[in-house]
Amino acid sequence: MIVKTTVRFLYTCKQAFNKNNKLGGNQVWIVGACFGAGLAAYSTVIKHAEMASLSIDKNNFMAEPITDSAILKANPSDMKTKMELMIMKIQKDFCKALEAEEDPETKFVVDRWLREEGGGGITCVLQDGRIIEKAGVNISVVSGNLPAGAIQQMKSRGREFVGSGPLPFFAAGVSSVIHPRNPMAPTIHFNYRYFEVTDSSGKKHWWFGGGTDLTPYYLNQEDAKHFHSTLKAACDKHDKSYYPRFKKWCDDYFKITHRGESRGIGGIFFDDLDTPSEEKVFSFVKGCAESVVPSYVPLLRAHKDDPYGYHEREWQLIRRGRYVEFNLIYDRGTKFGLYTPGARYESILMSLPLAAKWYYMHIPKEGSKEAEMMEVLKNPREWVAEGKSR
Amino acid sequence: MIVKTTVRFLYTCKQAFNKNNKLGGNQVWIVGACFGAGLAAYSTVIKHAEMASLSIDKNNFMAEPITDSAILKANPSDMKTKMELMIMKIQKDFCKALEAEEDPETKFVVDRWLREEGGGGITCVLQDGRIIEKAGVNISVVSGNLPAGAIQQMKSRGREFVGSGPLPFFAAGVSSVIHPRNPMAPTIHFNYRYFEVTDSSGKKHWWFGGGTDLTPYYLNQEDAKHFHSTLKAACDKHDKSYYPRFKKWCDDYFKITHRGESRGIGGIFFDDLDTPSEEKVFSFVKGCAESVVPSYVPLLRAHKDDPYGYHEREWQLIRRGRYVEFNLIYDRGTKFGLYTPGARYESILMSLPLAAKWYYMHIPKEGSKEAEMMEVLKNPREWVAEGKSR
Repeated sequence: MIVKTTVRFLYTCKQAFNKNNKLGGNQVWIVGACFGAGLAAYSTVIKHAEMASLSIDKNNFMAEPITDSAILKANPSDMKTKMELMIMKIQKDFCKALEAEEDPETKFVVDRWLREEGGGGITCVLQDGRIIEKAGVNISVVSGNLPAGAIQQMKSRGREFVGSGPLPFFAAGVSSVIHPRNPMAPTIHFNYRYFEVTDSSGKKHWWFGGGTDLTPYYLNQEDAKHFHSTLKAACDKHDKSYYPRFKKWCDDYFKITHRGESRGIGGIFFDDLDTPSEEKVFSFVKGCAESVVPSYVPLLRAHKDDPYGYHEREWQLIRRGRYVEFNLIYDRGTKFGLYTPGARYESILMSLPLAAKWYYMHIPKEGSKEAEMMEVLKNPREWVAEGKSR
Repeated sequence: MIVKTTVRFLYTCKQAFNKNNKLGGNQVWIVGACFGAGLAAYSTVIKHAEMASLSIDKNNFMAEPITDSAILKANPSDMKTKMELMIMKIQKDFCKALEAEEDPETKFVVDRWLREEGGGGITCVLQDGRIIEKAGVNISVVSGNLPAGAIQQMKSRGREFVGSGPLPFFAAGVSSVIHPRNPMAPTIHFNYRYFEVTDSSGKKHWWFGGGTDLTPYYLNQEDAKHFHSTLKAACDKHDKSYYPRFKKWCDDYFKITHRGESRGIGGIFFDDLDTPSEEKVFSFVKGCAESVVPSYVPLLRAHKDDPYGYHEREWQLIRRGRYVEFNLIYDRGTKFGLYTPGARYESILMSLPLAAKWYYMHIPKEGSKEAEMMEVLKNPREWVAEGKSR
């Protein structure tokens, strides 16, 4: 497999990498924490990522795994191994599904990067394509000691760690935002992540978090139902209470508070999921991640060549301005990341659209398609009837 | 004078106005505090603002003053009167100077709005012109009781108020951001404001704040020198220490910290200025505000018709993305405003450009004009030799 890179990338990556080395622990956390923003970026170049002979099928991945093959092979049932291989496959499957919708010459550029302190990531970017205006599909697999700020944040959410010494952690996640060019095709964001923290007593704390949400520019009720019912089906297989709980959590989280409107039509969102068992939650999270392609790609395919004009493009750009507002003002991962000295801002800001616009006092005309969209953004709806899934 | 407005504006203004009424004191503060973002917005319609027979020349203003004419006439030497009339004249002069650079049919739209609790503002907006892509020139004149958060913020900056009762305040300011269409013409932002707070002992605390700063897309050393030396001349008339102090304050404030670069090439920035006397600081602030037109309009005139192509426009849009990053992530007025429930977001966000772009890992080519600009943004320069002013 050929992993593409450019000299330009290399130049900045090295700068960032050196910076990170000086900053130590904080960086570890950024990579693990910026779930809303993109888990990975920057690169050390690998021109030909020749993989060792593993039972692990390299065709499942966009680049060589982050963790050494020998370690993966020796620990096949460790959740760290399972999560890394799962998110790498999700990354590959999603990138390939998106490339299949693009012009044949338009492919993801792959950046694989490593951290001295432990771990690294694979960033896949597609920019300025005919179908996809900007897409990032990132994975990261990192470890180290938790910085004080991260410990504080976890404790405030109710986690109790024994002792006051350093807390070794492991985090693995996949994170993605896709902004299509056609205003009739929606934007999607998803992120699934796994955390392990070992406290002074040797106790391993673990939990999963994540979610998938959709941001259409024009309301298509059939699409909304398809998207939500695909997510609901993935949830219902594991716990009938998940979809209603996580759907509401998503509506509450992706709010552009100052405008009193949602970023999009929601989906699911959850954090700190650590019951009933590691295996069962992993299986649920895997199911959610696998539902991204069937929930989204049919919508992209259906609308990527829809006719549209200047008016629709303008509206899309205005809504992308609102996407920027949410990500820069409210998104926890983005804020946390950017306020940390030496943050990998290119990674964190990869979720921003290629283009956005701001008009003073823009209000859609009454009765217009744009006003119809706004009505739903102001008043989140239920898209799937109780107990039903498609 | 005919004050233009539209039904669309009126509709939203009334919504916002009702919201504000419910929220009370906080709103007063937002209007006074959002100096970095636009002091005013929304409107109640006045179709023909017929002014009473005043010695005050209505031709100096974009709309009727906010304070009742009788009160202004009765208190000609009160700083509140002087500041209101000064900022209104600055608003008119700047709007007219900008309109003179535009196509004849392109004019500012004027929104005059009033608050039930006291005061109001005049918002002037020009959007999507041939020369000016987006411009806002706002004044606000508001009064009421300071909310707890504002008191805390002022105390943390060293202000000492006697007693613990409500603190009546008055704030008047002018605030503006101009984004020209031509990438060879720079963006300007300025804001000048006056605060009065009366504590329980009856003591009147007062201070001025403000600044002017320039954001070019391509470095033009002559322009930078002209801009800075005009500001320096305005400072030097009052205190030779002002320009170096306030130039540094500006460089420190307008930093996009996560990128390690400045928003632009700076200018001057100051706050809490309350010596040597109210009259003297007013005279200094008036001088600064009057220096906006001569510092900026010649640059706009010189470059508004410069040839440029797709490449230059792209770079301008990328830099405008950085402008958005600064305003949404770091600007104190914007942050404070948007986090306050019921904030007048259209006013606060008026400083955002009409259009912006984000490319993953965009780095200008070595030796390019764009790289030259970046070098200055990474390493702020001195533009005027010590002791010199043009």
